[in-house]
Amino acid sequence: MQPVPRQEIHQRISRFQVQLAVHQLDGAFILQNADLFYFSGTIQSSVLFVPAHGDPILMVQKNLKRAELESALKNIIPVKNKNKVPQILNDFGFNRLERSGLEMDVLPANLYLWFQQSFPQCSWRDVSNIIRRLRMVKSDYEIAQIKKATAVLHKGLTELKSVIREGITELEIDGHLAMIARREGHMGTLRMRGWNQEMTYAHVLAGDSGATVSLLNSPHGGTGNTPAMAQGAGFRKISRNEPIGVDYGVAINGYVGDQFRTYVIGTLSDPLKRAHACSQEILTLLVEKSRPGISCAELYATAAQKAKREGLEDFFMGHGEGQVKFIGHGIGLEIDEYPIISGRFDGGLENGMVLALEPKFVFPQKGVVGLEDDYLMTSEGLKRLTLTDQSLIQI
Amino acid sequence: MQPVPRQEIHQRISRFQVQLAVHQLDGAFILQNADLFYFSGTIQSSVLFVPAHGDPILMVQKNLKRAELESALKNIIPVKNKNKVPQILNDFGFNRLERSGLEMDVLPANLYLWFQQSFPQCSWRDVSNIIRRLRMVKSDYEIAQIKKATAVLHKGLTELKSVIREGITELEIDGHLAMIARREGHMGTLRMRGWNQEMTYAHVLAGDSGATVSLLNSPHGGTGNTPAMAQGAGFRKISRNEPIGVDYGVAINGYVGDQFRTYVIGTLSDPLKRAHACSQEILTLLVEKSRPGISCAELYATAAQKAKREGLEDFFMGHGEGQVKFIGHGIGLEIDEYPIISGRFDGGLENGMVLALEPKFVFPQKGVVGLEDDYLMTSEGLKRLTLTDQSLIQI
Repeated sequence: MQPVPRQEIHQRISRFQVQLAVHQLDGAFILQNADLFYFSGTIQSSVLFVPAHGDPILMVQKNLKRAELESALKNIIPVKNKNKVPQILNDFGFNRLERSGLEMDVLPANLYLWFQQSFPQCSWRDVSNIIRRLRMVKSDYEIAQIKKATAVLHKGLTELKSVIREGITELEIDGHLAMIARREGHMGTLRMRGWNQEMTYAHVLAGDSGATVSLLNSPHGGTGNTPAMAQGAGFRKISRNEPIGVDYGVAINGYVGDQFRTYVIGTLSDPLKRAHACSQEILTLLVEKSRPGISCAELYATAAQKAKREGLEDFFMGHGEGQVKFIGHGIGLEIDEYPIISGRFDGGLENGMVLALEPKFVFPQKGVVGLEDDYLMTSEGLKRLTLTDQSLIQI
Repeated sequence: MQPVPRQEIHQRISRFQVQLAVHQLDGAFILQNADLFYFSGTIQSSVLFVPAHGDPILMVQKNLKRAELESALKNIIPVKNKNKVPQILNDFGFNRLERSGLEMDVLPANLYLWFQQSFPQCSWRDVSNIIRRLRMVKSDYEIAQIKKATAVLHKGLTELKSVIREGITELEIDGHLAMIARREGHMGTLRMRGWNQEMTYAHVLAGDSGATVSLLNSPHGGTGNTPAMAQGAGFRKISRNEPIGVDYGVAINGYVGDQFRTYVIGTLSDPLKRAHACSQEILTLLVEKSRPGISCAELYATAAQKAKREGLEDFFMGHGEGQVKFIGHGIGLEIDEYPIISGRFDGGLENGMVLALEPKFVFPQKGVVGLEDDYLMTSEGLKRLTLTDQSLIQI
């Protein structure tokens, strides 16, 4: 069990404090697991107060001893009842908050109202966007964790070659991926920030399943095996000569790796093979084009134009109602991190960003083909962190 | 893929509408996946408005076609942008909401503020508690789904006997449980309502791992393999003569089954064997005592007193800071449903409730022993839905 290095925590807090000052905030309260882990190194049930100036205070409801072991923060205070939070802040000299931040994209309404009531003189600002933009740029420590995750992905996607066979169900393949992930140390959950978005370890989508649209903000959804989940693998059996799309995610020490490969028993029709090749060409193009400063909108346009030139625009990143308007996204403590590589994202690439780029094509009734790989933005260009060969995987 | 029967949806809506009228509400907006599935039969990205009188309106952002296939509701309307919601309500004659309900325990603050802004004349009430109390009592359809989940649990816990061996890690055992769950149709996630509470398929906790406290509202936590998750299985290897606690959950068609068994390679010390026997005796006692109308507080006291009579009160439902003050909880679309079988829960048992009763004992350094089984409250008494023998499982 490795705690997050002290230096990491201190740098993150410092960068956040600069932003708090820029936005003229007295401080911010952090409660959500991913953010709490980012700024404190622990997810033990806590309220973290980060003042614009001075040391943060981690107020722990459960479990104090474990929070002390895990977190590099100096002030770790037990708080059996959250109604004591204002008093503790007072004791530390923060006795009149006037403008403070909350994670208003994820914090439940009742907790928001509790803050309103507990600090009646304070006005509240949403700091989610500040946090998400801070978290876009990864440290060497964070990149090292993501590399551990991509190593597990490679192991799983490689082992899968001896698992996939005619007649096996999508769910059985998914189960094997879950088993491998856990055996290799996947922490057991893939965090997603978006409201109501839920994630399993994998999407295993064969043939028409790959063309089934879902609520998920993804080019593919899958049938799942119940409307209660409505995504991912189902009881569908694998046949010859159909694309088997496998989207696989694992998280090591909090950090997500996210990869997609296309398998086939036998061979694919020429249009599907062509689309798969186009996915690979799009990745090559994006790697060539990417440099610090390029806008996410330009990168998205590059990919979309390439698909259009190939006559594949109707199938690019989904089909019909299922078409999504992005070609990739950041990964880190959550699988839906900034930046979003889309025409609508305000901003561009920076050194230290880690991106999952996922050019995919969805053909009605036929399924999904494509690739997803994880890349690090460096001053020498995009460096691939995922290890698996990019060809169509024939079994 | 089985949709939720029309009759189910209509009964649930009717029961909710009675409560809305009792609480003098014009209606309520439902957005969270578990609640949305309960009242509409779909989790396709939607806003559901349930008026106190009249037909509900399901406004679907993504995916409309799938929502139409899955939901038995009459009014299913596409809404590309949620800013159109007030206009749609207006079109249906709900043009002046004055007092409406929201799921304020789970709805993010930003969405709450959006409702405030979009319906400026309306005041808002938290309807979470109403919904959670409605959902406590299960229909025959719901009970049938939970039985499917408990059948998978039995399969997994039985297969595990040939998986557990000296030197295997907790994570490998966990991975096998994940594989079995998915193979048999587990939908891929276990929903938990509590803020920041996260759930993997299983807790596999050997020896001292079983005595490691976590943030989780549970008698056992486990080390996990990273502070980023801080619960469940880790890389610890299984030895002879130590308790291996296995808490296993699967969800079929949305409905959770939740079971705990204690395994051992070899044998346990007498105090641990005695505590395991006491868990079984507590379950027998709770079954004898349970009848519609008995308070949850009385049931909890019965279990706690039995533990005390046996001199086991210091280890009952956790040890030290990790001790929790409940002996069971409802299960259904979420794993932390009402009722809570604790001294603090206001209410008692009713026919149709499904309870996970989990008498466990945690010994510092030594681990966790005990049982968890799922029961249905009927007019003839508690009926066990889980199928696995209650003895200590020796390998």
